[in-house]
Amino acid sequence: MNFCSQCGGQIERRVPAGDNRERDVCPQCGFIHYQNPKVIVGCLPVYQNKVLLCRRAIDPRYGLWTLPAGFMELGETTWQGAERETWEEARAKVSNLELYSVFNLPHIGQVYCIFRSELEKPEFAPGEESLEVALFEEEEIPWDELAFMTISRTLKHYFEDRKSGDFPVRMEDIEPSVKPKC
Amino acid sequence: MNFCSQCGGQIERRVPAGDNRERDVCPQCGFIHYQNPKVIVGCLPVYQNKVLLCRRAIDPRYGLWTLPAGFMELGETTWQGAERETWEEARAKVSNLELYSVFNLPHIGQVYCIFRSELEKPEFAPGEESLEVALFEEEEIPWDELAFMTISRTLKHYFEDRKSGDFPVRMEDIEPSVKPKC
Repeated sequence: MNFCSQCGGQIERRVPAGDNRERDVCPQCGFIHYQNPKVIVGCLPVYQNKVLLCRRAIDPRYGLWTLPAGFMELGETTWQGAERETWEEARAKVSNLELYSVFNLPHIGQVYCIFRSELEKPEFAPGEESLEVALFEEEEIPWDELAFMTISRTLKHYFEDRKSGDFPVRMEDIEPSVKPKC
Repeated sequence: MNFCSQCGGQIERRVPAGDNRERDVCPQCGFIHYQNPKVIVGCLPVYQNKVLLCRRAIDPRYGLWTLPAGFMELGETTWQGAERETWEEARAKVSNLELYSVFNLPHIGQVYCIFRSELEKPEFAPGEESLEVALFEEEEIPWDELAFMTISRTLKHYFEDRKSGDFPVRMEDIEPSVKPKC
């Protein structure tokens, strides 16, 4: 950040009065530009025994498989955002959302919230950001072609929890240099 | 937002190519300034049968009681943020954090994540943003002097769930015009 979004003045990096960390501060108008983590919302859509995955048509991880997910927007709830992303990326309608994965990715300032959900009908199609969308049985999951660790861990937990039918919310830290807990 | 934080150019409000909602876009350098919801992290610290509350020394809701909570910062996990806020506002050290409340507040672009936690020792003191900090038995909770609905609902669920000893993660929408689910 170079310029103040309020007045156009040159930004300084300093600790504001009463704060304890450096922020982007405008010495002209006094505005403090806070930057905070972002929330990624998405779904694990399930139809009968299968889960719905999308093959990415965008970078990063072009061509790899993922769950429909993306940045939460202002004015929506986490589950609304997860439904929206599932529609945008997989042209699929889901219901009965249940919070499942909550992952911290502090190295990139993200919190993932992924919901288990029911795919109402086996109807789906690639949205603009997907090359293809398909339903997978457990033994068909392309484990070596998954786009993100958040996705592989969610799927791993899901197939494990499915044995007992008990799906506790899973909160984990995912950091590049640290082996995830559990 | 009036000016581009990258180049200082005048911002335009428009839908970028490939997007479906209006953003703050810089026509000079092309930068898109996304704005997204923020995460509030906090704790419900428990010591023996009591919960720890802070009386706010800042607006909004000056003088009312709350749980220690605040904006999640870049570079930290949700539970690190919750521990940090508990230290900053109540000078209390907590452990064994368990995700408990996840509340959507779409009208103000916030997601609350509140953790049940154990107060290790009955040691606490008001931080800069608190007038006082105290432990409360269930029958002592100042229900009419709680600062936010996120706090009253978390406490209500907690005392209810304590009867069974089962504390499922509670996800709810809190909107000014809508009665919360459950």
